[in-house]
Amino acid sequence: MSDFPKKVKINEEGPREGFQIEKTPIPTDKKIEFINALSETGLKHIQTISFVNPKRVPAWADADEVVKGQYYNPEIEYTPLWLNPKGFERALQYRDKLTLDGKIAIGASEKFLIRNQNTDFKRNLQMQEEYIALYKANGVPVKCVGVNSAFGCNFQGEIPTSRVLEAVGQAFTIAHKFGYDPQQIRLADTMAWATPDRIKHTVGAVRNKYPDKEIHLHLHDTRGMAIANAFAGLEMGVASYDSAVAGLGGCPFAGHAGAAGNICTEDLVFLCEEMGIETGIDLDKLIETAQLAEKIMGRSLPGSVMHGGTLSRFRKAAAQ
Amino acid sequence: MSDFPKKVKINEEGPREGFQIEKTPIPTDKKIEFINALSETGLKHIQTISFVNPKRVPAWADADEVVKGQYYNPEIEYTPLWLNPKGFERALQYRDKLTLDGKIAIGASEKFLIRNQNTDFKRNLQMQEEYIALYKANGVPVKCVGVNSAFGCNFQGEIPTSRVLEAVGQAFTIAHKFGYDPQQIRLADTMAWATPDRIKHTVGAVRNKYPDKEIHLHLHDTRGMAIANAFAGLEMGVASYDSAVAGLGGCPFAGHAGAAGNICTEDLVFLCEEMGIETGIDLDKLIETAQLAEKIMGRSLPGSVMHGGTLSRFRKAAAQ
Repeated sequence: MSDFPKKVKINEEGPREGFQIEKTPIPTDKKIEFINALSETGLKHIQTISFVNPKRVPAWADADEVVKGQYYNPEIEYTPLWLNPKGFERALQYRDKLTLDGKIAIGASEKFLIRNQNTDFKRNLQMQEEYIALYKANGVPVKCVGVNSAFGCNFQGEIPTSRVLEAVGQAFTIAHKFGYDPQQIRLADTMAWATPDRIKHTVGAVRNKYPDKEIHLHLHDTRGMAIANAFAGLEMGVASYDSAVAGLGGCPFAGHAGAAGNICTEDLVFLCEEMGIETGIDLDKLIETAQLAEKIMGRSLPGSVMHGGTLSRFRKAAAQ
Repeated sequence: MSDFPKKVKINEEGPREGFQIEKTPIPTDKKIEFINALSETGLKHIQTISFVNPKRVPAWADADEVVKGQYYNPEIEYTPLWLNPKGFERALQYRDKLTLDGKIAIGASEKFLIRNQNTDFKRNLQMQEEYIALYKANGVPVKCVGVNSAFGCNFQGEIPTSRVLEAVGQAFTIAHKFGYDPQQIRLADTMAWATPDRIKHTVGAVRNKYPDKEIHLHLHDTRGMAIANAFAGLEMGVASYDSAVAGLGGCPFAGHAGAAGNICTEDLVFLCEEMGIETGIDLDKLIETAQLAEKIMGRSLPGSVMHGGTLSRFRKAAAQ
């Protein structure tokens, strides 16, 4: 019935997503403490930083200090986010520390592009070409093509699967034109429209068309569906996920105040490990880090397993 | 691939579960206001009341006042909970108002029975016989057999499927002995051990053995798995669920302070309706009732859709 993967790859986005959304600025040393704690959990991919305009996102005005101050575990890929060429130039300065992945991300929704980036589909494709030319010129790899708002959009409404496939095709065309051969297709539920049946439908269509590519899911939990959507992904064999410890984050650009964060890393790890799917992550340490996040943010965070606890202490007691 | 039902039946347990768990007593008139609001949402089954020892559960000392004070929508079955013959006797007084369902509930975990009810498996079966004799003597129907802690137990650990099947068989044997023919099998994840693969496995085994019976799931969200577990249930054709508006509740008897409430009704309704599965419930009204619950309880409640909102306003705007 299902194609459960044997192991999954988790890309932690808690620091980058979480620090950005908080109303009270997080002190630089707390950001560093949190990233260092995450580095001890077994996570292998952590998006730590956002090189964005400090006037627009004051929470990341200390991006350089954080990059310089954190501990680097050689087994971990630490990645930055950038949203424009200037941010990319800043990231380039830290190639000794950070792993730069040049993604091609096509928006599935033209209304969202127009509203938030003042670009239509055509201009969006041109911009992706400009980016990839920049990546090429700087020897930055492009390992991933992606579709944003792939499951629905607050401005466009439903996104037909045909549009997702079209966007993936466009992204590959651009990549190939520049001699890149990305192996991963990233489908983002940017505005939390997905339900598990849609995940299966869309992932199924993409998988049928690109059977040799790795599919990656980026899921938001605004409507409480993220863990069910991840389960649907696992049933479709999806073995790569973005997530955020303690459920940190939210989408400040979606015109939606109640938008919740990413799928919670420790809940996802719990789901996988309980189902016998390897994550390589120490769940107890991860929960401690989620609790540290609550301490740093000074508020209760949405993760469930961090509050409800794992089953291990009960299993141990029951075995006695 | 899946056996999605066309419609699902939802048994709302928010009032009974929610009022009991709150530290600050809820005034009687607020309880009534809340039940009356739920009665306008399209729900057809609401467990409103708990006839328990007021010394042990002071929050339900006003059970009689609530029963007498609430509005009765003739389309709705309002049900009480009782935990011993005395509670049942109290419920019997309100047969004009309440629907009395005599369930046979077998604990899957002997350690839990011993610890919480001071009974072993043998004594538990005897007690069920005593109950059913009482139901028979009072002309109360027995429409449901159930297994508690069917997916795992904080004291026993894992529960093998064979034990679940055995418990179901024992319950039917008792029912048949008294001339009852229950049509529903209720599997309760009393202590939130279930993951969606286990739901599928256990439901599959029960369904294979009892293909003509309706399966019903009672799910807790302590570890954030409830919505994924419900989706797994839907994929197995399960068309009947307990839930609690706003995610109210928790299990005060499980020796586990962090235990979260039932699966959140409006999140479950959102999942179903988005997947084209009828619930008969007005989601907007249900969300208003969840928000009323927050007001009454004076704290933020765990539901997601009540905070993140549905997709309808976005769909409307996108269509323009």
